[in-house]
Amino acid sequence: MKVLIIGGGGLVGQKLAKSLASRGELRGQSIDTLVLADVVDPAQVDAPFAVETATCDIADPASVSSVIDAETDVIYLLAAIVSGQAEEDLDLGYKINMMGTMNVLERCRELGTKPVVVFTSSIAVYGGEVADPIIDDTFLNPQTSYGAQKAIGELLLNDYSRKGIVDGRGFRLPTISVRPGKPNRAASSFMSSIIREPLNGQEAVCPVDPSFAHFYLSPRKCIENLIKGAEIPEEDLGQNRCMMMPGRTWTIGEIVEALRNVCGPEPEKLIRWEEQPDILAIVRGWRYDIQPSKALKLGLTADESFEDNIRYYLEDDKPAA
Amino acid sequence: MKVLIIGGGGLVGQKLAKSLASRGELRGQSIDTLVLADVVDPAQVDAPFAVETATCDIADPASVSSVIDAETDVIYLLAAIVSGQAEEDLDLGYKINMMGTMNVLERCRELGTKPVVVFTSSIAVYGGEVADPIIDDTFLNPQTSYGAQKAIGELLLNDYSRKGIVDGRGFRLPTISVRPGKPNRAASSFMSSIIREPLNGQEAVCPVDPSFAHFYLSPRKCIENLIKGAEIPEEDLGQNRCMMMPGRTWTIGEIVEALRNVCGPEPEKLIRWEEQPDILAIVRGWRYDIQPSKALKLGLTADESFEDNIRYYLEDDKPAA
Repeated sequence: MKVLIIGGGGLVGQKLAKSLASRGELRGQSIDTLVLADVVDPAQVDAPFAVETATCDIADPASVSSVIDAETDVIYLLAAIVSGQAEEDLDLGYKINMMGTMNVLERCRELGTKPVVVFTSSIAVYGGEVADPIIDDTFLNPQTSYGAQKAIGELLLNDYSRKGIVDGRGFRLPTISVRPGKPNRAASSFMSSIIREPLNGQEAVCPVDPSFAHFYLSPRKCIENLIKGAEIPEEDLGQNRCMMMPGRTWTIGEIVEALRNVCGPEPEKLIRWEEQPDILAIVRGWRYDIQPSKALKLGLTADESFEDNIRYYLEDDKPAA
Repeated sequence: MKVLIIGGGGLVGQKLAKSLASRGELRGQSIDTLVLADVVDPAQVDAPFAVETATCDIADPASVSSVIDAETDVIYLLAAIVSGQAEEDLDLGYKINMMGTMNVLERCRELGTKPVVVFTSSIAVYGGEVADPIIDDTFLNPQTSYGAQKAIGELLLNDYSRKGIVDGRGFRLPTISVRPGKPNRAASSFMSSIIREPLNGQEAVCPVDPSFAHFYLSPRKCIENLIKGAEIPEEDLGQNRCMMMPGRTWTIGEIVEALRNVCGPEPEKLIRWEEQPDILAIVRGWRYDIQPSKALKLGLTADESFEDNIRYYLEDDKPAA
């Protein structure tokens, strides 16, 4: 089996590659080749099978053709222009997030091999005028260009799957926390920082008050779900192959309590509470009252507690002191 | 005020043009120029203002630029590859229905004039795994490429409106009946034929039984709604500018009863009841239990009775004997 990860250089892509390396198989077949493709050459990953790295610009059909061939059995399409950048650069967002997805699907159509395509959509497809709770039947009314482009990707994936061109599966990722690495300019950055930085002896700013609620998933569970997502029997997917990936709703107060429960009272002293109206203006529109029934029924799972999210970070990602 | 109808040669485009001609104004301003654009040069329409006709291929950005200029205040985007053809020719459907919509929106972005864009979506965006009744909050799970492309058009229209590039309004058209003209190869063709052909002394085949229910709107009400749709104050549209256009659900039995009520017992004798499994296989998947609450609240309306649909046909469209 040959697996391709488009976006193989990113946080999720690299973790997924490592997980595939340790499993050695997917969908009941041993992996022969893993291709990691990204806009810049992805980091290599040690594996008991061949790992190739490649640069790929999904906005360019020829570049897409160079990484997907008739032997490609499973494609993870993780690459995207993220929300802040897609909002600032409308052309780039549509070029990569809409036309890039189209290019991948069209390449599969050209080959006629019907690979499995696992597409990462986002919680950002929700918003606007819909009532809570958000269920599998809820209208997608995104309030960012990124969310609109992901919702379009879902429609394309469903249509190309219905036509038998690909065996598509789309999963709307919750906010991933605790993310390793450094803070970034995403409005959600603090949702990892307030745990991660204190655990590494650094101060972090929390721009919202403890009652702020959101919908989270740990990186470890996200990877498990992406692997399960490729393995769901096609006949169980029904007429809508795109669904919310499970997660859980916690308030910031509950997250900080979990930090105390796992690591004692010291780390939270490094959290500086400082309301930031610009961040609040963005994150306040995000939806968190979500019931991911379909994905749960198909065997995908959420974290049991935020204590678990923190333990996973300590086990998987915390840099050695 | 300058109004452009893209798809100005079709049934809805021509009726809309005639209605604008008789009103002389739109959005409280008198119309100076009406441009009718279509893939083939549209028929002229008599009006108290200038009417220009133009050929336009919306898949070609240069062609789109030739019909939209800085003076264009309102654009009706009615042009589309219809369901049967979009299902057979995937390339053409995406080229016209997705990229064509994008080209119109991009031209507006280039001009920076924020015109009103009235987009006709379709009841075909509904389908698949959603519960009845269909409400404003219902997930779009189209089961045709046409439906997917219309749902993508809605997302584009909402996103470009949110960015302030256009003032968009999208309306999902019910099945239009009684359509004038000849039967066509659409699976829904009989939904007009069983009224129209008997009223013109011809036989018509009804391929479903009298209990078959569907969601209808007369051409006259459709045009009224498209005009009101352009006139809704922008601030009333909220965060989702796309909505189901009102219509009503009737069974074929009720439709035939309406025919009897308006025209007596003779015409229905020309209906030949002959179940056609291939037609049934398509139309049985269509949704009809629909609550178009948002559009009703904004002042759009449905027909009061199917008797009205028949009277409108007799008044507006029936060829002289």
